[in-house]
Amino acid sequence: MKPLTYRESGVDIDAGEDAVRRITPLARATNRAEVLAGVGGFASFVRVPAGYREPVLVSSTDGVGTKLKVAFLAGRHDTVGIDLVAMGVNDILVHGAEPLYFLDYIAVGRLDPAQIETVVGGIAAGCRQAGCALVGGEMAEHAGGHAPGEYDLAGFAVGVVERARLIDGAAVRVGDQVLGLASSGLHSNGFTLVRRIVFDVMGLGVFDPLPGMGRSVAETLLEKLLESVEVRAMAHVTGGGLTGNVPRVLPAGCRVRISRSSWSVPPVFEVLRKAGHVDDAEMFRTFNMGIGYVVIVPPAAAETASRLLRDSGERVARLGEVVAGDRGVELVA
Amino acid sequence: MKPLTYRESGVDIDAGEDAVRRITPLARATNRAEVLAGVGGFASFVRVPAGYREPVLVSSTDGVGTKLKVAFLAGRHDTVGIDLVAMGVNDILVHGAEPLYFLDYIAVGRLDPAQIETVVGGIAAGCRQAGCALVGGEMAEHAGGHAPGEYDLAGFAVGVVERARLIDGAAVRVGDQVLGLASSGLHSNGFTLVRRIVFDVMGLGVFDPLPGMGRSVAETLLEKLLESVEVRAMAHVTGGGLTGNVPRVLPAGCRVRISRSSWSVPPVFEVLRKAGHVDDAEMFRTFNMGIGYVVIVPPAAAETASRLLRDSGERVARLGEVVAGDRGVELVA
Repeated sequence: MKPLTYRESGVDIDAGEDAVRRITPLARATNRAEVLAGVGGFASFVRVPAGYREPVLVSSTDGVGTKLKVAFLAGRHDTVGIDLVAMGVNDILVHGAEPLYFLDYIAVGRLDPAQIETVVGGIAAGCRQAGCALVGGEMAEHAGGHAPGEYDLAGFAVGVVERARLIDGAAVRVGDQVLGLASSGLHSNGFTLVRRIVFDVMGLGVFDPLPGMGRSVAETLLEKLLESVEVRAMAHVTGGGLTGNVPRVLPAGCRVRISRSSWSVPPVFEVLRKAGHVDDAEMFRTFNMGIGYVVIVPPAAAETASRLLRDSGERVARLGEVVAGDRGVELVA
Repeated sequence: MKPLTYRESGVDIDAGEDAVRRITPLARATNRAEVLAGVGGFASFVRVPAGYREPVLVSSTDGVGTKLKVAFLAGRHDTVGIDLVAMGVNDILVHGAEPLYFLDYIAVGRLDPAQIETVVGGIAAGCRQAGCALVGGEMAEHAGGHAPGEYDLAGFAVGVVERARLIDGAAVRVGDQVLGLASSGLHSNGFTLVRRIVFDVMGLGVFDPLPGMGRSVAETLLEKLLESVEVRAMAHVTGGGLTGNVPRVLPAGCRVRISRSSWSVPPVFEVLRKAGHVDDAEMFRTFNMGIGYVVIVPPAAAETASRLLRDSGERVARLGEVVAGDRGVELVA
């Protein structure tokens, strides 16, 4: 019904139209039943999925940060979009929400339709993996704003959760147990649960069909976990490390005491620490130190939750527990 | 409950925390009853407002384009945020939706907390005008990515509308009448209905309290219009002009025939056309030519709609009508 798709802003109109022609089918391929109108028009229309009594919209915005520089250096633009989606979707999954849709923002110095197609191809692949629809985006051309061939990327993810099932950490109590899921090393700092599980654990490629008809592997795993035990909080360990991210989901008066001997920090972090003469606190607030995801459960649920995650192929450590005190993370020997 | 607010990504941590401290109260001041958790945490939580039987989420992403350059040249960073919100909110209003919430993305070369505070102050002011909550954002520091003191801005707006009341142009029929609302000149090309009505028509300042308790003037005007007549489509005339924007809301087989004598193109466009030797079609696909907003109604409703808009202080022109043919805009003498 709508001939134009992506919004254009200060963009070379012919290059913009060429880019739009290339990315429209990529975005369309991500549609889910709730999408009434995706890319095109002034805005996208998405129905709130049926079956929610009190639906809460869970929204996140993210960039891909320094991974963009890696993409520029490597000349590979097909995977930053996957990272972008995964960053946003993981921020939604930690609250127990179902990813619903995604919009992107791409700023370039000069619009190269083929490059846009490659980048958006990655975003669409990420959306298909996460089971969310790519319903819109914006391309901005800022002459002189970016070096030739470089660009900036941001994304906006929306999910939905039944209000009574929203996981926001408010239920965390002193004595709760803290489980850590291993990340696959330095390069996955900021990489995502979705990506890690899909590629590292399950060994699927970007374009492999996913089990579960439009539901991501991560979502399926989380759903199983949430159905089996009471999960009181979850945290995705990105920039800021354990120290920066875990307190975000703790209520006032609760801190997390983590035993450093409860898991093995991958050797790469030790190499980095020595090479950079980085002090310990800085390491823990900068890198994930081998823990990509944290799950907080009541004491009685810790064993079941650990087993369930291990059965799904995760490496799980019992990091420590919730203690009374100022909101924060405390590392003990 | 959550100590950190804005997500940080590759940001100088101390400057980032300073910026977060400055903008948190600005964002909080925009909250509406539906916001369960705004800035802070991994994501924001917003209830779908009560009273919708079949709620549809209407979402848009936008940048502010070249108006950023004007802000840099003028050294004024307090109003680009208002433009950013208005761009996004207008894209939602054209579909008959109620603006609900907004998230922003700010990319800087080097993070200057005072500048961020000024920019986000504008975003928050725009959100208050539009009656939507600023619930999250992302700051990205790309060393070398922007000249000192410069930045990029993008925004994501989400609104909600009852499915049966969604205005998507599907109802447009041959013979429908096309009304144009005057823009206030060149500088408002890409500027917004909200801003134009609030500042130009009503003469309110940025921080003046708005009538209607958190509902914007534009929203109130549109609601009055939508309650009084059947509106079949609306278009916000931004980059792309009448030629680029109106077809977005037309169904297949419908084109709009616009009589050029139905309104007076403001003199500034003639000056520009001559100065730049710009051809006519290019003028119409680049500038709004004095028409900021288009409303399409059935023939029987045209008179009532025009009167209602005029009574609200709008300058309204009967631009032309919907005819059979390829989707597009046709200018006749």
